[in-house]
Amino acid sequence: MIDNIFTRARSSWTKNEGPLNHIVISSRVRLARNLEKIPMPPFQNESQSHTVLERTKKAVEAVKLTGNTELFFLRLSELPALEKQILLEKHLISPEHLEEKPNRGLAISADETISIMVNEEDHLRLQVLLPGLQLDKAWEKADKIDNLLEEYLEFAFCEKKGYLTACPTNVGTGLRASVMVHIPTLVMTRQATKIFHTLGQLGFAVRGLYGEGTESKGSIFQVSNQITLGEKETEIIQNLSSVTRQIVDKEEEMRKILLKEMPLQLTDRVGRAYGILSNAAILSSEEALNLLSDLRLGVDLGLVKLNLKQENLTELMVLAQPGFLQKYAGKPMDALERDATRAKLFVEKLKQGGYN
Amino acid sequence: MIDNIFTRARSSWTKNEGPLNHIVISSRVRLARNLEKIPMPPFQNESQSHTVLERTKKAVEAVKLTGNTELFFLRLSELPALEKQILLEKHLISPEHLEEKPNRGLAISADETISIMVNEEDHLRLQVLLPGLQLDKAWEKADKIDNLLEEYLEFAFCEKKGYLTACPTNVGTGLRASVMVHIPTLVMTRQATKIFHTLGQLGFAVRGLYGEGTESKGSIFQVSNQITLGEKETEIIQNLSSVTRQIVDKEEEMRKILLKEMPLQLTDRVGRAYGILSNAAILSSEEALNLLSDLRLGVDLGLVKLNLKQENLTELMVLAQPGFLQKYAGKPMDALERDATRAKLFVEKLKQGGYN
Repeated sequence: MIDNIFTRARSSWTKNEGPLNHIVISSRVRLARNLEKIPMPPFQNESQSHTVLERTKKAVEAVKLTGNTELFFLRLSELPALEKQILLEKHLISPEHLEEKPNRGLAISADETISIMVNEEDHLRLQVLLPGLQLDKAWEKADKIDNLLEEYLEFAFCEKKGYLTACPTNVGTGLRASVMVHIPTLVMTRQATKIFHTLGQLGFAVRGLYGEGTESKGSIFQVSNQITLGEKETEIIQNLSSVTRQIVDKEEEMRKILLKEMPLQLTDRVGRAYGILSNAAILSSEEALNLLSDLRLGVDLGLVKLNLKQENLTELMVLAQPGFLQKYAGKPMDALERDATRAKLFVEKLKQGGYN
Repeated sequence: MIDNIFTRARSSWTKNEGPLNHIVISSRVRLARNLEKIPMPPFQNESQSHTVLERTKKAVEAVKLTGNTELFFLRLSELPALEKQILLEKHLISPEHLEEKPNRGLAISADETISIMVNEEDHLRLQVLLPGLQLDKAWEKADKIDNLLEEYLEFAFCEKKGYLTACPTNVGTGLRASVMVHIPTLVMTRQATKIFHTLGQLGFAVRGLYGEGTESKGSIFQVSNQITLGEKETEIIQNLSSVTRQIVDKEEEMRKILLKEMPLQLTDRVGRAYGILSNAAILSSEEALNLLSDLRLGVDLGLVKLNLKQENLTELMVLAQPGFLQKYAGKPMDALERDATRAKLFVEKLKQGGYN
């Protein structure tokens, strides 16, 4: 069951079933929690981190979740580097969790909607990741698991401040909610930068596809709350949902304008993206993401029909990443080999489907 | 029969049947001739140019050529601008012959290998255009027609200088021989510029696809003799043939090197060219020619198989031109319309064929 995670690109969040999925790729809620009376990861020794890992493992195994959301426990030290890379590419762990540090763990559900990083920046980082705009539902789910875990674990909590975390920016609710949005026409028309500026003033952070410090590729951005203290969890969720709906409105409006004003240019862009993705012999990850963005826009706007048999466009986005590719090829590869394998994979995936 | 010239892209020279056709697209021989005792075009009045037109028409109609090489006579003033543009795109007349001047004519054979411009820079400019490297054969054919015409027309000739022409650079043999070569790997590796420099020192001129003052597109160049005086016709033909064979050798050598050193990059380039040509919705003439150049190289190198049913790649090169396109669309078009029609045409032509 767990092996599947490393061989298939499908995660629940990539299946494209959520509301407003033509623009909102996924919704994510993350809770930071730390065990009472044990120093937090930046300050703990190896024996302390070991205790955290073992206690969390026990708690995770005690918690009863049904069906596909049942949790499995992994020790990162036992995973090959390539598999850790794939977890990152599927947004199941953070780039920071890749660092070789002792006693790092991951609890994960088979459908990959729930994951808990152990001993990353905080003792526990619980994540719920759903397709489309479903922050409410993601929050409910996270809250439920948080409550279940609290039956087995005592979390560091202060009446005045709320949950205590390693980094002060997470203190309080420990809640970080984020959405991943695909806004190609706002990027094309240079509206995105203005919108991001406004979002910043409203207390939201905007980042690229793989979190802090990563640049945006393929017109995909993550928008998240920056404030964790002084607001109720439901307020945080409501505010981000509302802001996301406004981004969706703006992107939809711009799509309508472009479709009316320059349908030929849009069709051209989409056609070229398909033509290159299905015929190139060398394809970088960045180019693949940018072309997938164009293709996705074309499908959303009904400019083309694309009959992909197995993977959809979000899954191809994950497939485009270096780690997944190497797993697919069954060996580590240099950059040119990766770009060649990626190109081969896209030719395969797109030609098995259809286009018109 | 003549109507076909304006509706089909096929000319004898585009059928790709000549020797060394993978690099030498066509061979051309042009003879400049002027009627005795009538001022040459730059200095003649309308009644004089009328005399030239009528006399040439009579001579052309008297000359007996067999089958597809039988000559037809056209008065340029009776042709719509679009049809003249098509004659240019098929290399049957020069850009200069497009200018609106009185009493301009064109004699042309149905297979388009033979054409005679009347009242361009000289009274007569006889051209023979064949596919591949066939300068000898083109010269023989031109010489034969020249002799036949001399039975009906008296050409200005001086024992000491040879044939007299409007421009001193043509005096003597009045012969200009040229080849059109496709040298993509010499262009990619920046060898072309060096070779052109050497050719210049040896007395050859190098120009783009449509003669003087036009830039090269699609890695296609015309190489011609600059000297018309003091050398025998057969020497001119031999020298250019020999130089062309050297260009072919260099291009072949570079193709082998690139195929060995960077097969993936070449395959990528060819695949992308096919992908864009068969999926774009807007395609400029220049981009189309450049992509056709890549595709042609891929076919030559056996990197891809392309099953075009009606037109081959040289014919698509002609189809890519603005005038032919408008004829095809049945109306004059602005630049964006042309680029859209061109894209549509390529999608049609390439999808009706196959690629693997």
